[in-house]
Amino acid sequence: MSVTAAKGFVASGVVAGLKSTGLPDVALVVNRGRSAAAAGVFTSNRSKANPVIWSQQVLADGAARAVILNSGGANCFTGAFGFQTTHSTAETVAEALDVSAGDVVVCSTGLIGVGDQVFRDKVLAGSRAAASELSPDGGLAAASAIMTTDTHPKQAVVQGDGWSVGGMAKGAGMLAPGLATMLVVLTTDADLPSGALDAALREATRVTFDRLDSDGCMSTNDTVVLLASAESGVTPTQADFARAVTALCADLARQLQGDAEGASHDITVEVMGAETEDDAVDVGRSLARSNLLMAAVFGNDPNWGRVLAAIGTTNAVFDPYDVDVSFNGVRLCAKGAPDRPVTDVDMTPRALHILLDLHAGPATATILTNDLTHDYVHENSAYSS
Amino acid sequence: MSVTAAKGFVASGVVAGLKSTGLPDVALVVNRGRSAAAAGVFTSNRSKANPVIWSQQVLADGAARAVILNSGGANCFTGAFGFQTTHSTAETVAEALDVSAGDVVVCSTGLIGVGDQVFRDKVLAGSRAAASELSPDGGLAAASAIMTTDTHPKQAVVQGDGWSVGGMAKGAGMLAPGLATMLVVLTTDADLPSGALDAALREATRVTFDRLDSDGCMSTNDTVVLLASAESGVTPTQADFARAVTALCADLARQLQGDAEGASHDITVEVMGAETEDDAVDVGRSLARSNLLMAAVFGNDPNWGRVLAAIGTTNAVFDPYDVDVSFNGVRLCAKGAPDRPVTDVDMTPRALHILLDLHAGPATATILTNDLTHDYVHENSAYSS
Repeated sequence: MSVTAAKGFVASGVVAGLKSTGLPDVALVVNRGRSAAAAGVFTSNRSKANPVIWSQQVLADGAARAVILNSGGANCFTGAFGFQTTHSTAETVAEALDVSAGDVVVCSTGLIGVGDQVFRDKVLAGSRAAASELSPDGGLAAASAIMTTDTHPKQAVVQGDGWSVGGMAKGAGMLAPGLATMLVVLTTDADLPSGALDAALREATRVTFDRLDSDGCMSTNDTVVLLASAESGVTPTQADFARAVTALCADLARQLQGDAEGASHDITVEVMGAETEDDAVDVGRSLARSNLLMAAVFGNDPNWGRVLAAIGTTNAVFDPYDVDVSFNGVRLCAKGAPDRPVTDVDMTPRALHILLDLHAGPATATILTNDLTHDYVHENSAYSS
Repeated sequence: MSVTAAKGFVASGVVAGLKSTGLPDVALVVNRGRSAAAAGVFTSNRSKANPVIWSQQVLADGAARAVILNSGGANCFTGAFGFQTTHSTAETVAEALDVSAGDVVVCSTGLIGVGDQVFRDKVLAGSRAAASELSPDGGLAAASAIMTTDTHPKQAVVQGDGWSVGGMAKGAGMLAPGLATMLVVLTTDADLPSGALDAALREATRVTFDRLDSDGCMSTNDTVVLLASAESGVTPTQADFARAVTALCADLARQLQGDAEGASHDITVEVMGAETEDDAVDVGRSLARSNLLMAAVFGNDPNWGRVLAAIGTTNAVFDPYDVDVSFNGVRLCAKGAPDRPVTDVDMTPRALHILLDLHAGPATATILTNDLTHDYVHENSAYSS
């Protein structure tokens, strides 16, 4: 149970024939509760897919009743025909559920440029089928249907005091960036207005999905939606709710990192001693985006020189000759000079912790990333996505 | 002939034992002409190696007599001892040549953090040996001694009217960025003051080395130096000289691109229709830094969707739904929608031309890059550099 863990929600996942594998590829999540409050965050990529353009409008009034999601085609850069497909998808779902099309969020993932008549026909038929199979036990089916290169479905639940928030996610990427589109649907039975949902969601994504940077690439389709049914009858404090949503998103983000395309290491980059949190994030992200460092990690080489070379490209406040770098607890570089020998570091575990102390202030941030491997290159050269 | 093509220059390349292969690893280029005018540009990485810190000071007065270069160790983040090694290297060369140490540029390339007593002893002995083997025919030996992962030496010459400018280069990287340190020494017998050299060199590197972006990583050691002997007795116009230096740098940049680590495609990204040249450069660079696009190119997949996803992350002025994308002359995307089928593109040649028309203005720029391959990952995970 996950996206249907909270009271008032049903879901389904069906085979629409969009995936060549014949696996489920259309998912639907519906809020049948007293409230239709909703909030969403979307990719910051200026090249936005049709479903993103549509769904931003849907959520502008803080209300939504359903989220329909398809894999097997991103419906991005598919012209006016593609946007009409998104619109028709929302209308098809709305008709089946007897709600307004303006309350149906649409999400798509797959190859950019795919969105022809065949695609449309399959998505619309799949949407009707999904509406007919809705169930309080449909969470796993929905989480499975949104998978693309994911090797397993991602779900999580956080229990509050008389209420809960649950969710599902797909993608080996991140909100910003990550072309392996991240789609996340969160549901809660807490009784909160859309403004409270929006604030909690932005607070949560800022420190979770936004800090998952697997390959530095930003998708055109990333979407995170939060629906609230109010069916618990409980109104938690904003702080309690935000804490729960953040814990949920952190759980899902770790699951996404652990299933990133081709990765052999799950890397936690912890930056401390920064002047500001933004500086700490910039510095952490510069490591995540260094191909040379990420290839070294794949080779089990704790290459601290590449760490210092990467952070030197940022505008963060620090003196490169005053920086400490540790790999898995072993300080290899102290104040910009060699410290303990690299042979002291055991790089064989999948989990790797890189700690930087900038000695420039009190701020910290943590970035999650993955190494650059042969499997990554293989998957992204052989698999057109 | 290259770095010794212009009158007044001698060079050498010797084995100092820094490379485990036993190949030449210390090079020296000396200006014996009437003038010691010189100029240089350096990495914009804030994490600068000791030789960069030293050489920026050397060139502050617009004069230099010699450039000593070593492979086998970057002498970066090696503490105060490392800086003393750079200083001693300059003094050793100065003594052998009977010039001031303040006129000796020092360049190093290799692993960051390497710079112990053994390294120092080998560099100093190699510097003395190089000074004793200087020759007007030493250009190739010098170009060979600065190679690291390069598979062949890079040299070029451009003839002016009674004067010439020649040079040598190493590295699979770029001035900014490229951790496979780019070291370039250019020599001319034109009679020009350092200000003229500096202006021509900056104009040239801005549109050549600065637009070679193989893997998005910026070295701590990148250096481009231009020495002028005045031995031709000819003072070309600034425009003629700048044109020759630009042609020379463009030639060397293409050679660096063609020998980039592990690459299987040499990609020319041409951006037209930009509002400003800076916008065109930003857009072109966003392609070069997209791992997903570069992996697709390795797989001979003309993935125009990943092109649009990449440019959407920039702040350049354009409408994503008004952009055309062509691969090798085949327009695959017109105004943000599919145009000709991807199967029309022959991706098998090593050379690939990606053309973007932003339809936002008159400006253009060209970025050179390479694809992301298994060999790149292998070389940078197995080879500690």
